[in-house]
Amino acid sequence: MTRAAQIYPQGRLTLREVGLRDGLQMVEVWPDTTAKRDWVTREHAAGVRHFEVGSFLPASRFPQFADVAELAQTIGTLPGAHSIALALNERGVHDALQAGVHEIALVVSATQAHSQANQRRSQDDAVALIRMADRARAADGPLISVGIAMAFGCSISGTVLPHDVLDLVESCLEAGADVIGLADTVGFAGPDAVGALTAQARALCGPVPLCIHLHDTRGLGIANASAALDAGCQVLDGSLGGLGGCPFAPGATGNVVLEDLAFLAQTKGVDTGIDLEKLIAVRDVLKSAMPNEQLFGAVARAGPIPTM
Amino acid sequence: MTRAAQIYPQGRLTLREVGLRDGLQMVEVWPDTTAKRDWVTREHAAGVRHFEVGSFLPASRFPQFADVAELAQTIGTLPGAHSIALALNERGVHDALQAGVHEIALVVSATQAHSQANQRRSQDDAVALIRMADRARAADGPLISVGIAMAFGCSISGTVLPHDVLDLVESCLEAGADVIGLADTVGFAGPDAVGALTAQARALCGPVPLCIHLHDTRGLGIANASAALDAGCQVLDGSLGGLGGCPFAPGATGNVVLEDLAFLAQTKGVDTGIDLEKLIAVRDVLKSAMPNEQLFGAVARAGPIPTM
Repeated sequence: MTRAAQIYPQGRLTLREVGLRDGLQMVEVWPDTTAKRDWVTREHAAGVRHFEVGSFLPASRFPQFADVAELAQTIGTLPGAHSIALALNERGVHDALQAGVHEIALVVSATQAHSQANQRRSQDDAVALIRMADRARAADGPLISVGIAMAFGCSISGTVLPHDVLDLVESCLEAGADVIGLADTVGFAGPDAVGALTAQARALCGPVPLCIHLHDTRGLGIANASAALDAGCQVLDGSLGGLGGCPFAPGATGNVVLEDLAFLAQTKGVDTGIDLEKLIAVRDVLKSAMPNEQLFGAVARAGPIPTM
Repeated sequence: MTRAAQIYPQGRLTLREVGLRDGLQMVEVWPDTTAKRDWVTREHAAGVRHFEVGSFLPASRFPQFADVAELAQTIGTLPGAHSIALALNERGVHDALQAGVHEIALVVSATQAHSQANQRRSQDDAVALIRMADRARAADGPLISVGIAMAFGCSISGTVLPHDVLDLVESCLEAGADVIGLADTVGFAGPDAVGALTAQARALCGPVPLCIHLHDTRGLGIANASAALDAGCQVLDGSLGGLGGCPFAPGATGNVVLEDLAFLAQTKGVDTGIDLEKLIAVRDVLKSAMPNEQLFGAVARAGPIPTM
């Protein structure tokens, strides 16, 4: 069994908390390190094990991620917890290796235009970064995950062909990716497209874990997640309270709501290891640390289905 | 071809606006008749054809529905438009016949407990009301639709067995129902349950149109709608802006958002005849008439997918 398959076990759904990275990408006020630790620790107690804790970007431009290494250390103290951090260039990869994160998340855009806009490099150069990270890590070093951004449509180039995404997935696997992600970065996807591409990518990935990363920009986030699960997806990203906006859609919600994903899985009889009521209670951390941030999520508002 | 099959044509998805009834059930401020006419007329221009315009209940207790007959008349003047109104007892059926609505909506609860709480009659007596309405109408009189409330779980009795719902559907068909509805009245359903019951009920209904009536109480409304469509459902209820609360879940959203349903259908390549941008613009009517009411809906917030 590969290490990735141990960390993302078959037979259960892994829900990853990406709010500490994707959810804080655009905010002006963010939780301090103590509050972030509280967030992570309480979610761990609720059963969450996979946390994207930040991004290795210049702290001058992204001060909200300045404590990414400290948070990776915190995750290291929590039994069974797994830290993930984003890197967009060589320096970021080196810093991530130095910090000892469990998984380095890299990004390859589904379109050249978004690749240049987001990373200032071509798709080929983005794939080359995977090879570089693979060579630079030790045998017991971090996993490398690669998220394909704009996999379901691009706000710059428009339509994205599934065939092109699958070609990219193959390139990423060849370059050394241990985990593949498909991201609906700007909320263009519908459930039919998500189900079809998930099934095709699953077939291509074999034992490599496939993560579907959804935004709820246009209200289809949970429907898309349901379609992904039906197509065999075993890893989904979400953020507590749906934290995180979208620079391309002002006022839009961010990541799909983690609590609602957990409830969806519950209705499907899919094991996530998460205690829904405990997870909902962690929203209090965000309410205190980011009082002006709108939190989303329906199951938190209405409550879980009462037991009778 | 039956009249119901003409009014709910095969090969396209019918989205019914139920906000004027279900959406106004619990509000304290509601649009006056002029604003309701504006709402209906502008939605008709956006392509909506099926409107539940109110309920034949005592105007003393439900003053928001006092203009139901006038609205049915308005609908009668709009080309191709179809009016639906709720009746819960014999008097309501008589009033609906008098008013000349195109479709009388009756309710049978999936559980005895809810039947008593909601209608103060047994399930058998609720089915008897269908027979009474069927006998009372002229040959060219209104359609009779029957919605099975709590079809996916009951906030009083808990679990509802699909088998019992299907038995009820059969009883309703025998009693004279032209249209069958399955309602997730309190937002207990998940997509797997909705898909499975929709497929079974479709098989039972044959040419009789089957409508799935969803609430977005716990965030699964659109996912449930997607599952219903995948299982062959051709009629879905929704309300503009997700208007309408739920007495069993304070603060919860109401019906599934009509605009988001239209967007979902668009991503599936399913024809609804609705112009999404025009539909979204009708929210202005609600904003003016009910300024303190929270409107829901993601596609209205983020906008449709831009054409590139």
